[in-house]
Amino acid sequence: MIILGIDPGLATVGYGVITYDGRCACTDYGTIKTPKGKSLAERLVAISCAVEKLIDTYCPDAVAIEEIFFNTNAKTAINVSHARGVIICMALRKGCKLYEYTPLQIKQGLTGYGKADKRQVQHMVAALLSLKSLPRPDDAADALAVALCHIQTNRFSELYRV
Amino acid sequence: MIILGIDPGLATVGYGVITYDGRCACTDYGTIKTPKGKSLAERLVAISCAVEKLIDTYCPDAVAIEEIFFNTNAKTAINVSHARGVIICMALRKGCKLYEYTPLQIKQGLTGYGKADKRQVQHMVAALLSLKSLPRPDDAADALAVALCHIQTNRFSELYRV
Repeated sequence: MIILGIDPGLATVGYGVITYDGRCACTDYGTIKTPKGKSLAERLVAISCAVEKLIDTYCPDAVAIEEIFFNTNAKTAINVSHARGVIICMALRKGCKLYEYTPLQIKQGLTGYGKADKRQVQHMVAALLSLKSLPRPDDAADALAVALCHIQTNRFSELYRV
Repeated sequence: MIILGIDPGLATVGYGVITYDGRCACTDYGTIKTPKGKSLAERLVAISCAVEKLIDTYCPDAVAIEEIFFNTNAKTAINVSHARGVIICMALRKGCKLYEYTPLQIKQGLTGYGKADKRQVQHMVAALLSLKSLPRPDDAADALAVALCHIQTNRFSELYRV
């Protein structure tokens, strides 16, 4: 099973691709960056095309995306939501199954503690994927975390199935 | 020149198509509605497909879209932004020129007064388009208003050009 994790944003979208066959392996991770000088529309199209390319390249069975964190300022939330809408729409139009997780669910899923700090989450990402160092930048690490959260959540669902 | 005006939203997207050849004529207006029972992703795809169909049908020279009004509550702003991102991205991917106007610019452009009420704006929409009654529902009227604002703005730009 291949999972594409996405940490949405307008300036930077983090992505992480994980292959799961009983154990997790990191296939790819990185960021999509859009220049500040471009219009909102141009930046959204750039994100849309890059996500389409990722889906075409890795044919993920599931796309897992982080939910908007409400406590950020309104301007940031609105920018992220524009990008998030474009990503979600593209994923479904390309036939992917889509799953959404809150920051709390991601922290809880990876560390067992919903208020774990960023560093602790990154340590768990590196440990679960047997990476030699912490994944960088933060947006890519967050994307790997949401993909891992999807795997952890479904693994537990299977365990509890009668 | 054909202008497609859009009033973005998640539950309801208003649209208005205006043809301008020295005078304005209303070609079409209405709403795209997405059911509450569907997932966010399904609603975004429905909006994306409907906007694509409108662009294919009317081949607009310009798409004019209302900017987000910041004073609404965060949940509403986030929902509208998801839909707005999808619409903007689709317009640019289909090769349309995109223009954004704030509610203040729209009111100012149509009535000469940035704090005009909804009813006054609707009266001007009906008058400028020689409609026999006020356009309904509000979302469609707002979409016609943003399209008219684009025409008014560009007409003035032409007048002031040396």
